[in-house]
Amino acid sequence: MAGSSEPTRVMVAVNESSIKGYPHPSISSCAAFDWMLSKLVRSNTGGFHLLFLHVQVPDEDGFDDMDSIYASPADFQTMKQRDKIRGLHLLEYFVNQCHQLEINCEAWIKQGDPKEVICSEVKRVQPDLLVVGSRGLGPFQRVFVGTVSEFCVKHADCPVITIKRKADEAPQDPVDD
Amino acid sequence: MAGSSEPTRVMVAVNESSIKGYPHPSISSCAAFDWMLSKLVRSNTGGFHLLFLHVQVPDEDGFDDMDSIYASPADFQTMKQRDKIRGLHLLEYFVNQCHQLEINCEAWIKQGDPKEVICSEVKRVQPDLLVVGSRGLGPFQRVFVGTVSEFCVKHADCPVITIKRKADEAPQDPVDD
Repeated sequence: MAGSSEPTRVMVAVNESSIKGYPHPSISSCAAFDWMLSKLVRSNTGGFHLLFLHVQVPDEDGFDDMDSIYASPADFQTMKQRDKIRGLHLLEYFVNQCHQLEINCEAWIKQGDPKEVICSEVKRVQPDLLVVGSRGLGPFQRVFVGTVSEFCVKHADCPVITIKRKADEAPQDPVDD
Repeated sequence: MAGSSEPTRVMVAVNESSIKGYPHPSISSCAAFDWMLSKLVRSNTGGFHLLFLHVQVPDEDGFDDMDSIYASPADFQTMKQRDKIRGLHLLEYFVNQCHQLEINCEAWIKQGDPKEVICSEVKRVQPDLLVVGSRGLGPFQRVFVGTVSEFCVKHADCPVITIKRKADEAPQDPVDD
């Protein structure tokens, strides 16, 4: 193909599993990653450059710390440090896989509302394609949960591909991931 | 990449230009096709199998025939024959390009409401990915025009990627394509 010198830059938004806990990627993140490897990258590992973005939600993380006591600025520092380490473990999973497959990649963490941060990072980094996983919730569940993928399809400044989990991978409560 | 024996089957929905007339593909169809070649297929031409679907809208075609007189069943036959030939010319453009690039492809024509036919063909053919072009209309224009791409993102039974025309390719009236 003419003009294929620059690799295709694919941003992949990844998040933690709500069932298995933080260092584990969510079912939909894994589904999106695996789909992209097997259907788009395929054997052409040199033709793609993957950009993994993990957005940490500060409030949500705070929930786990309900029983903690924050008595000094240092306590918050410890918490932030721990969050950072958990985020790094999540990204490590994806970066390790890329390393084994010899696919170039970068990974980084941001804090905030995932849907807004993903779109602002797309604006900043300008990937060729954004891949997001989706729990594939029905319209009723969607009202209460909100979906990152739908927001990105509408608002991200690049083509977006949404990958749903397989039906047999959905947990008992489909809001889990 | 393991398990990449079967090529990735990408369905591409294509339509005619509303400015240049029938045998010419629309700006957004060309944008979607070119994007897919340069960003996904790249040099890996053997890894992809392209499926071109063109949906002809029977009523819309009738508009061009306002001055014609249909006096016998044979007249309708002639019209249908001519429509078919025009559709084939459109598909020929894409099939020729694939042939030059040595990418396997198939192409076919269906009649009906494009958004519904595309989704029912996805159900029947089960591609790995659907690529649709989009005029990138604003919300106000969308109300009156309806967009095929938005419908497919919601209802197609496979991952969907929507490719917008580049801003500098949009015609004076953005509803044109």
